Amino acid sequence: MRTWEKNIRKVTPYVPGEQPRRDNIIKLNTNENPYPPSPEVRQAAKSMSTRAMRLYPDPAASDLVEALAYRYHLSNDQVFVGVGSDDVLAMAFLTFFNSDRPLLFPDVTYSFYPVWAELFRIPFETVPLNEKFRLVKEDYARENGGIIFPNPNAPTGVYEPLQDIRWILQHNRDSVVIVDEAYIDFGGKSAVKLIDEFENLLVVQTFSKSRSLAGMRIGYAMGNARLIRYLNDVKYSFNSYTMSRAAIILGVEAVNDEAYFRESLDKIITTRERVKEEMRELGFDFPDSKANFLFATHPDYPARELQAALKEEGIYVRYFDAPRTDNYLRITIGTDEEMNVFLGFLRKYRKK
Amino acid sequence: MRTWEKNIRKVTPYVPGEQPRRDNIIKLNTNENPYPPSPEVRQAAKSMSTRAMRLYPDPAASDLVEALAYRYHLSNDQVFVGVGSDDVLAMAFLTFFNSDRPLLFPDVTYSFYPVWAELFRIPFETVPLNEKFRLVKEDYARENGGIIFPNPNAPTGVYEPLQDIRWILQHNRDSVVIVDEAYIDFGGKSAVKLIDEFENLLVVQTFSKSRSLAGMRIGYAMGNARLIRYLNDVKYSFNSYTMSRAAIILGVEAVNDEAYFRESLDKIITTRERVKEEMRELGFDFPDSKANFLFATHPDYPARELQAALKEEGIYVRYFDAPRTDNYLRITIGTDEEMNVFLGFLRKYRKK
Repeated sequence: MRTWEKNIRKVTPYVPGEQPRRDNIIKLNTNENPYPPSPEVRQAAKSMSTRAMRLYPDPAASDLVEALAYRYHLSNDQVFVGVGSDDVLAMAFLTFFNSDRPLLFPDVTYSFYPVWAELFRIPFETVPLNEKFRLVKEDYARENGGIIFPNPNAPTGVYEPLQDIRWILQHNRDSVVIVDEAYIDFGGKSAVKLIDEFENLLVVQTFSKSRSLAGMRIGYAMGNARLIRYLNDVKYSFNSYTMSRAAIILGVEAVNDEAYFRESLDKIITTRERVKEEMRELGFDFPDSKANFLFATHPDYPARELQAALKEEGIYVRYFDAPRTDNYLRITIGTDEEMNVFLGFLRKYRKK
Repeated sequence: MRTWEKNIRKVTPYVPGEQPRRDNIIKLNTNENPYPPSPEVRQAAKSMSTRAMRLYPDPAASDLVEALAYRYHLSNDQVFVGVGSDDVLAMAFLTFFNSDRPLLFPDVTYSFYPVWAELFRIPFETVPLNEKFRLVKEDYARENGGIIFPNPNAPTGVYEPLQDIRWILQHNRDSVVIVDEAYIDFGGKSAVKLIDEFENLLVVQTFSKSRSLAGMRIGYAMGNARLIRYLNDVKYSFNSYTMSRAAIILGVEAVNDEAYFRESLDKIITTRERVKEEMRELGFDFPDSKANFLFATHPDYPARELQAALKEEGIYVRYFDAPRTDNYLRITIGTDEEMNVFLGFLRKYRKK
């Protein structure tokens, strides 16, 4: 190692799901929405001024913040936006979890949490989910430097009812609690209605799943104005202008077209429920999912082999080689046509 | 203070230049390019697929990295991209400056440096520029945990010749040295040609000035592959997908249209040299600038008063209320028409 390398922060980065550059695949590996963004988004993109691109964007991304505040019945100072929910969460880790006591999160959860903790040297402890991948709320009633969990959880899809979230908040008034709701729109109830009651609650959501804008990188957080101010102070100490003009313009349209949003959610939920039935018939087992994916295992098919066989056919699903999850596949809910191809493959695979 | 606020990282954020939302102003306060991006950028925006926006972008932003590598005669693993050069610099501070010894940078420089240092708890010392705002290279030949300076410097516009940069690098082989070249295209020679010689040199540039894409948020760093790998490890530990599909697509076009880029630079440089002459005639004093702005003072006009008077007329320039700079204004070079209005105002102001 060279001397200049001594002062370098060395980390083991998060590995995102594969983004294959080839076409003609069925991409069920990174939980994207199978439907395009709203026609209003397309319209706005068409009429977007590239002349204006010479100018910096509004550093506060006010148009987008206002659209979100209006949508969730909040005031503008209760909303924070960032470059996808990963950016929002990274900023939140940096802002809120500066304690010698451990940050708590589930043992089976979004695998970026330990990576952020390592990056910012935040001590953490994982809290085991029960055998059904359910969160055990009592395990969070202990001293900690912060709490974070997704609801519905990733990669399991398991949704915890709001009364359990409230219980955890009632027992944790001395540290910041983040509920990561990347998948909430696919059937859960958002904890956003609890933010007036708990000033230490931050709710994080994203445009990458339900709003079909993974490619534009937009995420947001909602919480009381004090929490949002601290988050903005760190954001303005990191990068004044995180949201491009394009992200602001297209993001606003995606939020405003509520009818299109609902319609696309309904389609995905209908497909998900049908796929659940068919997969159960094929002998798969999975916790009930309120997200846009299923987390499934099969008594006869080792998950890694099945993943490889699917990939061979151009069907991408996600596999996590980690304790408790290494015989499961996470399968995004695509269009009906895509899921028919997927299910057709499983039927053939079974006969082998 | 509530108990939950104890663990919060409290910082004093950077204050970006004002981005007024009104039209009909002459905006010479944040060093944007007065000319729009290349027609190729406009064309690419028009034909951009919004359907594809439902999908995550390429996390490595390979198309953009390749375009930059080709342009600067580097290999792909020598280029890093981020959400504006502020994002690149924030990541670089987090990655490279983990030392108990102080980071060194000039006393008069980009005011974001001490903000990043505070955010990441990096000890730092400022090194005074001489009375002509020139960098004194010998002052950097001392123990340190890293070095950063812009070339040309901001907000002075002063350019330091490459042999002085090389001298600093020769005397600092044990820590990372970052040359922040946001303004290099307006008349300086880039230190990028030194990266083969010094493996601890990182050169940072941006699309926000010379490439007319401040609104899209694109910055980049160039250095040896080891340095870039460390930076990517931190980036992938922060946010896998920083660059939106739109940023990648438009960024590539902006890099590739070299002819348009040169033409727009030539116009700005010609205007700058004329404005220098006229302002000298009006009694202003300023260090010679190789950037797209002038950093000017006048013996008879207090800078803050002049700034206020200009703003009254709808002409925005930047004022920094800090030691050594509090009687200067930083004036972006706009179009010839804009600078004529500005100079016309100064002529009238003088007579009062």
